[in-house]
Amino acid sequence: MSARDIILKELLEASHLQGVEALLGWDQETYMPEGAGAARSEQVAYITTLMHSKLVGDPLKDALEELIDLQTGELRIMTLNDQETRQLKEIWRDYRQEATLPADFVSELAKHASVSQQAWVRARKDNDFTFFEPFLTRMVQMQKEKAGYLAIGDTPYDSLMDQFEPDMTSEKVSGLFQEIRTRLVPLIQNIQEVKHRVNASVLTKEYEIDKQWDFGVSMLEAIGFDMNHGRQDKSAHPFTTSTHPTDVRTTTRLRENDLKSALLSTLHEGGHALYEQGLPIAEYGNPLGQAISLGIHESQSRMWENLVGLSPQFWRFAYPKLQAKFPDQLRNTDRDMFHAAMNRVRPSKVRVEADEATYNLHIMLRFEIEKMLINENFPVAELPQLWNDKMEEYIGVRPENDSEGVLQDVHWSFGAFGYFPTYTLGNLYSVQFFNQARIDVAGMEESFARGDYSGLLTWLRENIHSKGRGRKAEELVLELAGQELSAQPFMDYLEAKYRKVYNLS
Amino acid sequence: MSARDIILKELLEASHLQGVEALLGWDQETYMPEGAGAARSEQVAYITTLMHSKLVGDPLKDALEELIDLQTGELRIMTLNDQETRQLKEIWRDYRQEATLPADFVSELAKHASVSQQAWVRARKDNDFTFFEPFLTRMVQMQKEKAGYLAIGDTPYDSLMDQFEPDMTSEKVSGLFQEIRTRLVPLIQNIQEVKHRVNASVLTKEYEIDKQWDFGVSMLEAIGFDMNHGRQDKSAHPFTTSTHPTDVRTTTRLRENDLKSALLSTLHEGGHALYEQGLPIAEYGNPLGQAISLGIHESQSRMWENLVGLSPQFWRFAYPKLQAKFPDQLRNTDRDMFHAAMNRVRPSKVRVEADEATYNLHIMLRFEIEKMLINENFPVAELPQLWNDKMEEYIGVRPENDSEGVLQDVHWSFGAFGYFPTYTLGNLYSVQFFNQARIDVAGMEESFARGDYSGLLTWLRENIHSKGRGRKAEELVLELAGQELSAQPFMDYLEAKYRKVYNLS
Repeated sequence: MSARDIILKELLEASHLQGVEALLGWDQETYMPEGAGAARSEQVAYITTLMHSKLVGDPLKDALEELIDLQTGELRIMTLNDQETRQLKEIWRDYRQEATLPADFVSELAKHASVSQQAWVRARKDNDFTFFEPFLTRMVQMQKEKAGYLAIGDTPYDSLMDQFEPDMTSEKVSGLFQEIRTRLVPLIQNIQEVKHRVNASVLTKEYEIDKQWDFGVSMLEAIGFDMNHGRQDKSAHPFTTSTHPTDVRTTTRLRENDLKSALLSTLHEGGHALYEQGLPIAEYGNPLGQAISLGIHESQSRMWENLVGLSPQFWRFAYPKLQAKFPDQLRNTDRDMFHAAMNRVRPSKVRVEADEATYNLHIMLRFEIEKMLINENFPVAELPQLWNDKMEEYIGVRPENDSEGVLQDVHWSFGAFGYFPTYTLGNLYSVQFFNQARIDVAGMEESFARGDYSGLLTWLRENIHSKGRGRKAEELVLELAGQELSAQPFMDYLEAKYRKVYNLS
Repeated sequence: MSARDIILKELLEASHLQGVEALLGWDQETYMPEGAGAARSEQVAYITTLMHSKLVGDPLKDALEELIDLQTGELRIMTLNDQETRQLKEIWRDYRQEATLPADFVSELAKHASVSQQAWVRARKDNDFTFFEPFLTRMVQMQKEKAGYLAIGDTPYDSLMDQFEPDMTSEKVSGLFQEIRTRLVPLIQNIQEVKHRVNASVLTKEYEIDKQWDFGVSMLEAIGFDMNHGRQDKSAHPFTTSTHPTDVRTTTRLRENDLKSALLSTLHEGGHALYEQGLPIAEYGNPLGQAISLGIHESQSRMWENLVGLSPQFWRFAYPKLQAKFPDQLRNTDRDMFHAAMNRVRPSKVRVEADEATYNLHIMLRFEIEKMLINENFPVAELPQLWNDKMEEYIGVRPENDSEGVLQDVHWSFGAFGYFPTYTLGNLYSVQFFNQARIDVAGMEESFARGDYSGLLTWLRENIHSKGRGRKAEELVLELAGQELSAQPFMDYLEAKYRKVYNLS
């Protein structure tokens, strides 16, 4: 076998393990019996360890070393075309990252992540931060240790963020967030002054769970989710996972008196799933078959959730169907009123319930706190106080308990520090991509009103999904939108949208 | 680490892989999207390959070689107690079996098994044996090859059977089957002459699926199935699998006009599951934490299905509850009539629908055919004809198509040749064990009528489940029942039972 064939074989095998790990995780959140948690932690940790050994093992290393200088990344082979070169560079990038982590550390971290996540579930249920505190303290320590191994950015936090959004820095994120805040805070203030103009009470009537489920599934299918190569289930926290592009699974969470939450989460996860289903199967196992970054991933979910699912055109198609499902509840609400209700802006305590505008303030707060934890040794014990103070400062509300405060998100429990910023980056990318798709696909938004989402999906498939990691995020946005990642299109979009919804001057 | 610690560590890791493989298999039969089959085959084959490498790898081999002569099985260490000696001998037995198989063969077989099983599903659905034929032909070839590697028994078929029922031989099975047949055929004839005495039409009224499901779950819980460490789902073919003793999963299959099938399959799988949940967690990963053999496993499932679930005492407890669920359907059927209906004997085409008596004829037929395929090169293309002829000879009915004939069982498609005999062996063991439990546990069957199954379960837990592979099957039956495996108790039980049900002279 040639060096390249060996590399691809080793990576394919690592991907089998990754697919298996995805199934273990999916099962843990959907169907696993409660008492199986300890055994599952062991299984996941073992698979993670195997995957690590595979990714830093001699077969891969030796073959890679034939083709590229492992220290400098300089190519030793001159016969590769552009895509092969990019593929090799990305493989090398992954290799370097993985090889910095000692095997024992990887195994310990995987075990602690699983245990700590289970502790978080209990702490959140019992509203008991003290129970979670030692787990989180250890996790923060391990993340600092991990940042030390990775040593990619200017600060430990930058090293962690780079795992999720390659080449992104705290400095760039701070700049973008500052730009957003400058325009977002006055926009939200303007809206607050006329908040009576939108009444969202229709969304909190009683809506039967089964009918909500059916409607959600029909919307998933409408936007192009392939049920022959995926499925939807219920879980405490909605997520998307993929064992392979032919097996992509989303979950949703339904509540009787909350029509908006399940529907938007269904479309959000559907956006992630469309990306995963659209990755090129022929490249499965290597970077050309993988998603670029979490920011780009989030651009897909936020696009289908917000730019599609909260658009007036979407509801021209969907509202009659929703009314047919819930004739009693929606009899006295016309489409414009409903659309406005779905788009209501209101400062709130919980990120996943937040509207499209205030959502980004939730992210900024987490970004600041994460940097304090990772770079500045802020004590975990004082987190609840810090959280609540920052909530008042950023969003103007104060959580009444930790379950709806510092315990609300799962991410930190399993060690995802540096992940949150990608949510807002996704918002920025999504508008930049969507604006371009609107130019490239004639009548795209009008077709939404007819229930036809194939124009947008085809554009995304061709320009983003099918390319895998053939482009870096910064190259992709430059190539597609003709400009660098920027907060301006996003803020222009928000301002224009809410000017209409709230009839602002 | 000591040699013994190394061995246990390696085996524990192999068990993690086995648990993962169990989940992959469970998912494939329950929730996996249809289009994910090809990717799943690759994942399963890869995990199987990893497991094989682990089980024949140098760390295990070298450590084992310190303690035992790999050729002769002679101990090289004298400080082990009885259980440790047994443990080591069983580990050695497994090692020898695994080490005879080349890694490429293991991987190829795993892949073909998955592909061939999917082909069988399609062939059965389409009633198209020709479609399945090449897959089965290749599988039979691979099984012959496997028998050649294993080379344990007098014939290739004996080598295959030994995988499922260690130390069992065709000769012993033939003897037992002959003994059963001698008494069973006249018994069935006697019953056929008075078959009008039992009317089973009540079982094929319309019974709502959801209510059947709820009743089945309540019966599972009544017999002691722990839902905190297990679950039940639906699948095309009922099965039980375990990712760990704390995560044991059964499935059932429900049909509106068939009350008996789902209920008995629920109890049957429940019996398997109780065994798996009762294995000692402290020994997880090594033979002392594993089930003895498929025959012993089947003794548990058949015991709960037949000796408990078809007993008059069980229905004293269960029938009022069933009547409460289905008052309209069961209004005019009293408990004795219902019990007789559940116990009706009637020659039929499909094994899994067969009654307790004729069931064993289905097994004998498969045993004969399997020997012809594996030992005598009987051509796969002529299987349908052979099957139908033997059905007429053994059971007196002739299938009208291959879906209800030679295609009815999944086993051959994934390579389980030598597996079927364990079903009848399980019947024999089950009566031998049950007779002893009845002696040891005062008032055991009376307590069934009060819904208390803890006497039997505790007896099984103490005497069978908790021992893992600490005894061989033949030792266990001798130790518990004071006699060797025998057909006589089983036939005594059947004759006595049907004398009552059919009021035979």
